[in-house]
Amino acid sequence: MIALDFWYEFASSYSYPAAMRIADVAAARGVTVTWRPFLLGPIFAAQGWRDSPFNIYPAKGRYMWRDLARIAARERLAFKRPSRFPRHTLAAARVALVGVGQGWVADFSRRVYAANFAEDREISEPAVLAEILTELGLDANAILEQSRAPDNKTALRDQITEAETLGIFGAPSFTVGQELFWGNDRLEEAVDFASG
Amino acid sequence: MIALDFWYEFASSYSYPAAMRIADVAAARGVTVTWRPFLLGPIFAAQGWRDSPFNIYPAKGRYMWRDLARIAARERLAFKRPSRFPRHTLAAARVALVGVGQGWVADFSRRVYAANFAEDREISEPAVLAEILTELGLDANAILEQSRAPDNKTALRDQITEAETLGIFGAPSFTVGQELFWGNDRLEEAVDFASG
Repeated sequence: MIALDFWYEFASSYSYPAAMRIADVAAARGVTVTWRPFLLGPIFAAQGWRDSPFNIYPAKGRYMWRDLARIAARERLAFKRPSRFPRHTLAAARVALVGVGQGWVADFSRRVYAANFAEDREISEPAVLAEILTELGLDANAILEQSRAPDNKTALRDQITEAETLGIFGAPSFTVGQELFWGNDRLEEAVDFASG
Repeated sequence: MIALDFWYEFASSYSYPAAMRIADVAAARGVTVTWRPFLLGPIFAAQGWRDSPFNIYPAKGRYMWRDLARIAARERLAFKRPSRFPRHTLAAARVALVGVGQGWVADFSRRVYAANFAEDREISEPAVLAEILTELGLDANAILEQSRAPDNKTALRDQITEAETLGIFGAPSFTVGQELFWGNDRLEEAVDFASG
């Protein structure tokens, strides 16, 4: 099987439809997806941004919310504009990284996206993450503890460094080896590239 | 016939494939295109940018050139990365606006894009614009003079103001009434929207 890396940030609005679509799109073309949760904060900070560009540039932000609503309607995805944007995602990203090793990262990530962009829940709160983990039949307390262990914190920092090395500057991004594709709009192209 | 407004800037890299594709895509769906040349410079300046974001943010710029090469290959468009980017486009935009009233704006615009992004020619130079006009069988000297007339300068400024009022923040953009679509990737969606 050919593999595609899916780089996503839980606060990223366009990562929401990508996360909901990628499993089906990739499976239809025989491509395996490696879920790579990371954080855009450090990458944006390196570009001089202390906030989402959608907040820094209001016209761009207004357009994004309208565009995202159109995409959600087309994809039949529930959508509700979050009352807080962007939400803090350090805790969620650390938990997701634990899930990479334990096989539940995709299910967890889809639920976190739905919580953020369809249910307007505060995904920065450990209690919300715990609820999602419990719904998945997992031991929430044990996983939250693992997520805060030094080796997992280091693993997330390494993941961000690897994203930067690959030239990633936004989310969602898809990589196949060194080839980079950026944006929900490029999902099909990235999967086609991966499937040769 | 339903009309779609096509907002483009001659320096804009992603406007190149959009300009080359739009006539066919729109005609296939029975949609009329109104070509709306404008300038991004004043709009970027209002966002605090004195240069293209693709130059300000190098990772984004590296990606854009790779992505544009992939798009050009897919669309079978000649492509050569311009040795100067972005080029000054005030003169070209003024000439194009004359062409809106005289019926040759689409042909002229496609040739200017090819000059900039396939032939690496200096489209800021009136001599290059004159050559293109002459190739189209037009009176280059008369048109260049018209393009610099006060009413045409005012018309371009009004065009930019209208773009800002519509919430346009980048190019290419497409509008159908108040509905805004941004990016070459949104061309089909915009045309579908226009055709109801």
